[in-house]
Amino acid sequence: MATASGEVHHPVDPGISKLQFAPFSSALDAGFWHELTQKKLNEYRLDETPKVIKGYYYNGDPLGLPARLTLEFSAFDMNASIPARCCPAFGTLYNTNTFETFKSCDKKSLLEKEANEIWESIKSGAALENPMLLNRFLLLTFADLKKYHFYYWFCYPALCFPDGIHIIQKPVCLGDRFPLNQIQALQKAYDELCQREGVTALPYFLIKYHDNSVEITLLKKWDGFFQDQGEKVTVGVYDPCNLSHYPGWPLRNFLILAAHKWGSILQSVEVLCFRDRTMQGVRDITHSIIFEIKLPESALGPDCPKAVGWEKNQKGGIGPRMVNLSECMDPKRLAESSVDLNLKLMCWRLVPTLDLEKIVSAKCLLLGAGTLGCSVARTLMGWGVRKITFVDNAKISYSNPVRQPLYEFEDCLSGGKPKALAAADRLQKIFPGVSSEGYNMSIPMPGHPVNFSEVTMAQARKDVAKLEELIDAHDVVFLLMDTRESRWLPAVIAASKRKLVINAALGFDTFVVMRHGLKKPKQQESGDSYFNNASGSSDLLGSSLFSNIPGYKLGCYFCNDVVAPGDSTRDRTLDQQCTVSRPGLAMVAGALAVELMVSVLQHPEGGYAVASSSDDRMNEPPTSLGLVPHQIRGFLSRFDNVLPVSLAFDKCTACSTKVSLRRNKIGIVFSCLRNYF
Amino acid sequence: MATASGEVHHPVDPGISKLQFAPFSSALDAGFWHELTQKKLNEYRLDETPKVIKGYYYNGDPLGLPARLTLEFSAFDMNASIPARCCPAFGTLYNTNTFETFKSCDKKSLLEKEANEIWESIKSGAALENPMLLNRFLLLTFADLKKYHFYYWFCYPALCFPDGIHIIQKPVCLGDRFPLNQIQALQKAYDELCQREGVTALPYFLIKYHDNSVEITLLKKWDGFFQDQGEKVTVGVYDPCNLSHYPGWPLRNFLILAAHKWGSILQSVEVLCFRDRTMQGVRDITHSIIFEIKLPESALGPDCPKAVGWEKNQKGGIGPRMVNLSECMDPKRLAESSVDLNLKLMCWRLVPTLDLEKIVSAKCLLLGAGTLGCSVARTLMGWGVRKITFVDNAKISYSNPVRQPLYEFEDCLSGGKPKALAAADRLQKIFPGVSSEGYNMSIPMPGHPVNFSEVTMAQARKDVAKLEELIDAHDVVFLLMDTRESRWLPAVIAASKRKLVINAALGFDTFVVMRHGLKKPKQQESGDSYFNNASGSSDLLGSSLFSNIPGYKLGCYFCNDVVAPGDSTRDRTLDQQCTVSRPGLAMVAGALAVELMVSVLQHPEGGYAVASSSDDRMNEPPTSLGLVPHQIRGFLSRFDNVLPVSLAFDKCTACSTKVSLRRNKIGIVFSCLRNYF
Repeated sequence: MATASGEVHHPVDPGISKLQFAPFSSALDAGFWHELTQKKLNEYRLDETPKVIKGYYYNGDPLGLPARLTLEFSAFDMNASIPARCCPAFGTLYNTNTFETFKSCDKKSLLEKEANEIWESIKSGAALENPMLLNRFLLLTFADLKKYHFYYWFCYPALCFPDGIHIIQKPVCLGDRFPLNQIQALQKAYDELCQREGVTALPYFLIKYHDNSVEITLLKKWDGFFQDQGEKVTVGVYDPCNLSHYPGWPLRNFLILAAHKWGSILQSVEVLCFRDRTMQGVRDITHSIIFEIKLPESALGPDCPKAVGWEKNQKGGIGPRMVNLSECMDPKRLAESSVDLNLKLMCWRLVPTLDLEKIVSAKCLLLGAGTLGCSVARTLMGWGVRKITFVDNAKISYSNPVRQPLYEFEDCLSGGKPKALAAADRLQKIFPGVSSEGYNMSIPMPGHPVNFSEVTMAQARKDVAKLEELIDAHDVVFLLMDTRESRWLPAVIAASKRKLVINAALGFDTFVVMRHGLKKPKQQESGDSYFNNASGSSDLLGSSLFSNIPGYKLGCYFCNDVVAPGDSTRDRTLDQQCTVSRPGLAMVAGALAVELMVSVLQHPEGGYAVASSSDDRMNEPPTSLGLVPHQIRGFLSRFDNVLPVSLAFDKCTACSTKVSLRRNKIGIVFSCLRNYF
Repeated sequence: MATASGEVHHPVDPGISKLQFAPFSSALDAGFWHELTQKKLNEYRLDETPKVIKGYYYNGDPLGLPARLTLEFSAFDMNASIPARCCPAFGTLYNTNTFETFKSCDKKSLLEKEANEIWESIKSGAALENPMLLNRFLLLTFADLKKYHFYYWFCYPALCFPDGIHIIQKPVCLGDRFPLNQIQALQKAYDELCQREGVTALPYFLIKYHDNSVEITLLKKWDGFFQDQGEKVTVGVYDPCNLSHYPGWPLRNFLILAAHKWGSILQSVEVLCFRDRTMQGVRDITHSIIFEIKLPESALGPDCPKAVGWEKNQKGGIGPRMVNLSECMDPKRLAESSVDLNLKLMCWRLVPTLDLEKIVSAKCLLLGAGTLGCSVARTLMGWGVRKITFVDNAKISYSNPVRQPLYEFEDCLSGGKPKALAAADRLQKIFPGVSSEGYNMSIPMPGHPVNFSEVTMAQARKDVAKLEELIDAHDVVFLLMDTRESRWLPAVIAASKRKLVINAALGFDTFVVMRHGLKKPKQQESGDSYFNNASGSSDLLGSSLFSNIPGYKLGCYFCNDVVAPGDSTRDRTLDQQCTVSRPGLAMVAGALAVELMVSVLQHPEGGYAVASSSDDRMNEPPTSLGLVPHQIRGFLSRFDNVLPVSLAFDKCTACSTKVSLRRNKIGIVFSCLRNYF
């Protein structure tokens, strides 16, 4: 049964006189969609302009398989090699940003545009030179990357003869028509031409055969090839179809070309649908078909003929197809790419200069896995940070889960799991792509009772060494403990190692979040131009005492202390022992601690960045994310934050050079500690 | 073997001549500690002043059990009844706030103080009138309510004779000394006296026995009871000890009293240690013991004798005892009381006027269970809110868990769990004491395509009805969706029902958190004095256009809209579809939304409270928690919040009276919705 589009719908009586064609089925594999996802995220982003992609078709499929145009992960790489004996086809990808654009796309005009280009390439002779111009497809897509649903509509444009094509000689098998030696000669001639041309397959070619020989050549060689008027002309098409009575779709535009170019001199043309399969190790082209048709040249006017080609959907109706890859993709990889997506979305439109890699790759050490530690870890996960390590020596108690968002009731049973380990486990449960570790250990504290027995000294020495090792292995150290004095040793070690320290501490309804001043690198301590400039310009330009203070002059948590760290847990009543705070406070402070880190990392000078103060809120921000303050002091009762800046104190018990220098060796740290007892 | 304290340590030769006493073992059961916890949390808080408590002892225990002074949950209730045949004893509880105070407590002086009071009551005769004054104990405690570790030190003060007490007649069993009829007469006389006095047991009493009768009376009746000089005097003591050769501790102070009062006229006294048990259903006092001692009156001077009585610890040494109840208490109850503890701690010192009940009992409906919904729920849990309900129609996708702190990777598998249900489940896992529910449903939105088929209309009608029912059943409605238009219908319904609405919405690095204006109650719409005053005073005092605006004049989320809510999800690119925001933003906004709710609930006028603006940050705050703003607009790039105030718009599409009135019936709401399509 012939339809307007000339498409084969179901087996029909081969005795009818009009030629029908088996359409392509699009075969878009998961690799294609994965690659499209990557392109969309990293390259196209919101760009909707058409993109060139490359597919291919094969003509060696066993009977029963439809003719397929395959798109793989390699579709986006014009230099990717095509599998052996496959014929490439170039297409145009229209990837829309929204489902609405996808649906409302004017498919008729897209098809007409493409058809017109084919027609122009026929008229200009370009298609003779490069027959690939006949072999084109369109792909309209919308990738719902939140759900991994991919919507698409495939089109292989075919120009049509207004009245169809009359068959003069019905299709017969090559094996029924020619002796074996002639078939082998054909095969040999085809292979040699491919080799000469350096291609995996020739989509279209010309054939001349005599009793004992076969010649094959390129379309552009017509004039020298067929010299005799009235000579029988045979054209070959590399045919993806394997139905014994129908050619596949690629023949269609070629017949239009043939009619346009040669219709005036030829009444008819013989067509060889070249089919090339290997069965049980034996190559075979005898199932290729050959037939003769009338070339209706007169039917073609100057205008582009009508074109067809939009693929039907899975139900056989008019509509797009959809593949849901959320099930078949590896869930863990899905999770990873989904998490990346949200972050990349930020860059596309909102903060194109955002350097995500600086954030994602920051290795973060969280000292304290309580209310602050849990909130900080959650926010770091949101930013895509992959390496998060916890240190804590407490166990999870019953009051924790409602305020510490990494724990649950079950974690409290049987005395409670160690917080550091439970927190690390929970991060894995939230997002398997994170690399999280927990260390259930104490941080040696000045002023806290330690027996100077060999055993306790050895343990404390071990803890100091481990802490030093951990700080070494991370880029950012978060101080999130519930006592002042436990912040001291990590602050000293981190200062000496020039690590970025982010400190957060809570009161009842107030908090402080700050970055510690980052000392000049050792080689620059004596002063080089970079640091002298920074310092010099601030001295000159400083409009007030605390403006334009560069990162290396900023104070740490202990700089404003007048007393040495003491034992602040001793003799405190219950409400002082745990930091009693309004429940929202830790979430706000934890989130801001991470946002402060992100702002610092985005600044080209990182921890050396000049500190923004409240006054800078009116000014042009130093980074695309905004201000890079030294401290954020929050007052929940007023829903207010201020951004103070303070200078390092040159006799600070934690960050002054004197202390830093004295602690080159763990033993020296310890003698420091000992002095405080 | 006699020790300085006269305490029995281990079975000794009964032939020795000095009397020894079996000390009390303190028996403090879990109910006592539970009740102490409650008292500490709700009543004592940081108050360390001594408290009167009540224990009791029994004298019917089988041989082998030590003499115990029992404290139960009823110890704090002076009116609580004492179990049958148990003798009450009053004590003084010293509950310290810190372990350090507990340890450093001057136990010697505590004991001396108590001993002195006993001595004074003996000298003054008060103890004769009320022998309970001899029966006193001390309890020094420290309750570590984070770990459910209870430290305590028990003392039953006993005044001592400097040289001990000489035994004249060794203890014998009552059954070995008296015929059965006389023993029965003794029992009858004792029971009758108890009955007459309305007590469960008499700690001390006087006995006269003749061949066929027994008389028993109270101590204060001495003068009429023993008339003849030289008559044998027998005193009775209700004896918790069941050793056959030793009396229990209560006898000690009584003998001091006896020596002081009657030592000048008596050389000796006979002591009956009354023991009263029921074995196999038969009551029996025959195991009571009786003995005669010398009364060493001359040994007592005017000063208080030396006293002993601090209980030894479990190891038999000097030191406090500790019970760890974290294991044996029901974990779910433990969790509940632990969660309460943190909240109550806030009240004790920091915000004594905080009305926690208003917060804890607020029933909260969360429309939206995404980044905001999860953070809001977490903060509500921290505040102890017990009733939290989620509405959402989305499923959990792979990108959610890192930003939505109630979900995990596993929740994303197989297409994703419905958010509302998963969120409700997670709350239970965090804290089993919460009552959480989830409704996986859509909120009908104006402007979104709805077929007006019977089926879709019926579903939408059902959704509206359910939403209305849910809003009815809650006190606070949180609008936490990711589209403007989905906020419209709940805003309209909540406005008409005068429910507090807290709205939070995110941009990329900005947020708005606001309370909707709360319309006057219907009966007051025409204006009564309360509302007129509020409005009047604001008009008079208003220093600027937007100061002193009472809650009922405040705008809602839609008041500044110039367009009707439309379909904002249609035709948006990916970065607009999901609200792409800096990961810390939702945590900050979610936390502040809850803190705003808390501030409003703490204000005596609740949602009608005058709105605080940024200018009010300098002023005295209206509540102990601080300001009660209308809106908090946050700017993460500047780490800044401002507190704008805006008036309700009288033609607002959501909260104006016109809309509110029109939606009395669901059908009318629907016709409203329909108008927007």
